[in-house]
Amino acid sequence: MNIFSAPVIKLIEEFEKLPGIGHKSAQRLAFHVLNMPGENAVNFVNAITEAKQKIKYCSICCNFTESDPCGVCSSGNRDESKICVVEWPKDVFAIERTREYKGLYHVLHGAISPMSGIGPDDIKLKELVARLGSDDVTEIIVATNPTVEGEATASYIARLLASFSISITRIAHGLPIGSDLEYADEVTLARAMEGRREIN
Amino acid sequence: MNIFSAPVIKLIEEFEKLPGIGHKSAQRLAFHVLNMPGENAVNFVNAITEAKQKIKYCSICCNFTESDPCGVCSSGNRDESKICVVEWPKDVFAIERTREYKGLYHVLHGAISPMSGIGPDDIKLKELVARLGSDDVTEIIVATNPTVEGEATASYIARLLASFSISITRIAHGLPIGSDLEYADEVTLARAMEGRREIN
Repeated sequence: MNIFSAPVIKLIEEFEKLPGIGHKSAQRLAFHVLNMPGENAVNFVNAITEAKQKIKYCSICCNFTESDPCGVCSSGNRDESKICVVEWPKDVFAIERTREYKGLYHVLHGAISPMSGIGPDDIKLKELVARLGSDDVTEIIVATNPTVEGEATASYIARLLASFSISITRIAHGLPIGSDLEYADEVTLARAMEGRREIN
Repeated sequence: MNIFSAPVIKLIEEFEKLPGIGHKSAQRLAFHVLNMPGENAVNFVNAITEAKQKIKYCSICCNFTESDPCGVCSSGNRDESKICVVEWPKDVFAIERTREYKGLYHVLHGAISPMSGIGPDDIKLKELVARLGSDDVTEIIVATNPTVEGEATASYIARLLASFSISITRIAHGLPIGSDLEYADEVTLARAMEGRREIN
């Protein structure tokens, strides 16, 4: 006998589909929703519905935006000669937080991953190439993640854009600031040695 | 400048209100929802709305149910002389999974916790007392969690029901099956010694 009725099971299943939510967490979240006051549940549902309705891809950089083009693309105060290519919208947020980068962005919404069946056509690469025809872009900074998929995507982009007279750069990999050499993994340390620069 | 537009921020905030979801997880979940196909988002929203509409408290045991009274209370095959008192609906599920207990349940929807401002009137204790007038109950098994709040609630229930001629029992605390004495904490071990029984 299943002690939960169908709508509860359905709710648990829906929560389980979210990334990083296992069966136990899904149960806890479902019961939390069932226990919350009705108006809070309405707020939650409205937030999802509204975000899905209002948020679209920026027709230029493919980042999430309410108005098209997005705030960065339409700002006029950004350095339009640089495009920083990232995997996800949250990466734009991470780079903006540094307050160092003043160029534009391009969000791929993923990385090439043959293992997961994600090829070049499944991410926003066509849209990136389309931007290079009209814009006076001089540098593409590839800031995909330092993972197998991110590296593969970076190499693919480098080959894809080789025919354009644009400098294609990759963000540096090395020791994180504040870390300890002793605890760095071999790959990071090797990349840090390889990427060494003259002290000036 | 905030890189996210208002609906995205609202969605992240709503996810952050869920238990065990921090800011980073809320961001990940919000972006997952934004990236999912529209129909999946509709399914998610419908599951929440439907569960909130259809699921209510059982008028007898206060467990979540679609039909009132719930499957357990209306079954007719359960031992109606025993009521197992638990904090949450998921505890009913955990006990049902053992396939050992055949009595009824009572779900308090919380535990007494003066630190969090939750008093006896904030949990379903009145509803428990109300059941004792009419039913031919002979035993109340208090299965609240072995935490400070759960123990406080158990003591409170024992005092509250002292005037009824009902046996009030507490589930046993001791070493979990398959565990190792060496790694048991002192409190558990002390409770295990205290609760020792003759081998028969």
